[in-house]
Amino acid sequence: MHVLITGAAGMIGRKLTEMLLAEPELGGRPVTKLTLHDVVTPQAAPTPETSILPIVGDISDKVLVEHLIAEKPDLIVHLAAVVSGEAEADFAKGYAANLDGTRLLFDEIRKAHYGARVLYASSIAVFGAPFPDPIPDDFHLTPLTSYGAQKAVGELILADYARRGFFDGIGLRLPTICVRPGAPNKAASGFFSSIIREPLKGEEAILPVPDTVRHWLASPRAAVGFFLHAATLATHDIGPRRNLTMPGVSVTVAEQLAALRAVAGDKAAALIKAQPDETISRIVAGWPQAFDASRAGDLGFVADESFEAIIHAHIDDEHGGKAPIQD
Amino acid sequence: MHVLITGAAGMIGRKLTEMLLAEPELGGRPVTKLTLHDVVTPQAAPTPETSILPIVGDISDKVLVEHLIAEKPDLIVHLAAVVSGEAEADFAKGYAANLDGTRLLFDEIRKAHYGARVLYASSIAVFGAPFPDPIPDDFHLTPLTSYGAQKAVGELILADYARRGFFDGIGLRLPTICVRPGAPNKAASGFFSSIIREPLKGEEAILPVPDTVRHWLASPRAAVGFFLHAATLATHDIGPRRNLTMPGVSVTVAEQLAALRAVAGDKAAALIKAQPDETISRIVAGWPQAFDASRAGDLGFVADESFEAIIHAHIDDEHGGKAPIQD
Repeated sequence: MHVLITGAAGMIGRKLTEMLLAEPELGGRPVTKLTLHDVVTPQAAPTPETSILPIVGDISDKVLVEHLIAEKPDLIVHLAAVVSGEAEADFAKGYAANLDGTRLLFDEIRKAHYGARVLYASSIAVFGAPFPDPIPDDFHLTPLTSYGAQKAVGELILADYARRGFFDGIGLRLPTICVRPGAPNKAASGFFSSIIREPLKGEEAILPVPDTVRHWLASPRAAVGFFLHAATLATHDIGPRRNLTMPGVSVTVAEQLAALRAVAGDKAAALIKAQPDETISRIVAGWPQAFDASRAGDLGFVADESFEAIIHAHIDDEHGGKAPIQD
Repeated sequence: MHVLITGAAGMIGRKLTEMLLAEPELGGRPVTKLTLHDVVTPQAAPTPETSILPIVGDISDKVLVEHLIAEKPDLIVHLAAVVSGEAEADFAKGYAANLDGTRLLFDEIRKAHYGARVLYASSIAVFGAPFPDPIPDDFHLTPLTSYGAQKAVGELILADYARRGFFDGIGLRLPTICVRPGAPNKAASGFFSSIIREPLKGEEAILPVPDTVRHWLASPRAAVGFFLHAATLATHDIGPRRNLTMPGVSVTVAEQLAALRAVAGDKAAALIKAQPDETISRIVAGWPQAFDASRAGDLGFVADESFEAIIHAHIDDEHGGKAPIQD
């Protein structure tokens, strides 16, 4: 089985690659080849079971996309995207990668027409306030960012191409990923991760919003699990509504902090400094707080068990099971 | 004031053109010029108040679209589209006109960035069964045709471009138009019009579905009224959700026939022959029956008063106030 991952050098792409190399099997079929695409060279070493073909370039480049599909990969995981903040700041770049790139990729698969399974990373950014609570599975698409609009366009094309039988596609609307490993970034959502990640390393973290803020989160491990589950899911059970809101954990910041205290103790929790930021607070106030993701649940997608479980997954995956701050 | 109408040779385009030439004023400003685009030459004669520039060509042709926007029309009514049945039968043609054409047009207006008002003809085809009854204003977009998917993509781009301030856009999701003037066509929805239009001329009409079928209808006159209202509506009141389900009349076929009998008598009603068609019945069973279009209602869009009013409008507009069958 040949798997293509676009955006394979990103956080989810790297973790999915690692998982497929460690357990090279999907639905009983061996994973014999990974084609790994990104704008920088994806770092992964082949194994005796699985060869690796790295392809570097821009997803909005037609020749590159032809190259990606030339060998007709059985499974395509389309993660490549310009992220929300950048798509808002750079109009042309966002539309080129997220809309044109997605359409080029889907069209190339359509033209090859060989029964590919296509998994598309969408986002809860396809929704925009005001919201009911919780947001039902049949809530309309009202993105309030260009990124969200571009992701929603991809969802519509995916569903239409799947309906027409060009490929077998599933769109996965990912929750905000937490705890993101790595350095703090300037994304408005960054604090959801940094208030856990930095204290676990014994470092201070800034909390820019009131601790009453509630949001919809999933661990990187859960996100990788969504794609692995979708890779072999019987799409007959999904019907024509191919874009699914993935299950998440709805927690307040106060609940995040209580979980951190429970897992890592008071010393860790004391490293969080409240420093209200009106801009970030205003942005985050427009974000979804909780979904009724029962369609995805019925189809077997599994959320993290709790926010404590999310912290434990982070400590397991990034600190080998024990965080520096833990006694 | 300069108005551009794309798809101006179509039924709505012709009626809108006639109306603007007869009453050449919008929001207190004189309509001094109409640019009329279509794939065939739109037929309309200039008046002392209003000049006419016909432009013939394909909306997916970049040079043509540049030409359309070169003079920066104040109001753009984007009606040009490949219709539902054809977009389903001819994949490439539908995506080229309905998605690429719409995006090209919106991008050209974006680049000129001069505060244009853009009205976009969307459709209830952006929705797909199963539905709640009535379908609320916040129901998700689940098109079950390529036409519906293409219209929904246009809605998303329109809303994003309006949010970014590139132009001032409103999307109008039109009900099924009834009574369509002219010859019967092969559209699955054709019978909604033909069971009124043909009997009023003293001709037989085929009813291919049970008379319990309910659907969401607006007269051509109401549809033109929607665009005229949207042309000068204060968009500040709309907010970021720029795509509006237009109000319609929800009636069963039995109610349509009772209205025909009330308006034109038993002789007209007797001209309808039931001839069940399973294919058409199955297609129509997946169509929306009724909407809660209260957002549009709150914004001042007005539906036909009743199905009888729709028949009277047809007799006024197409038969000069008296149908051939009437005594």
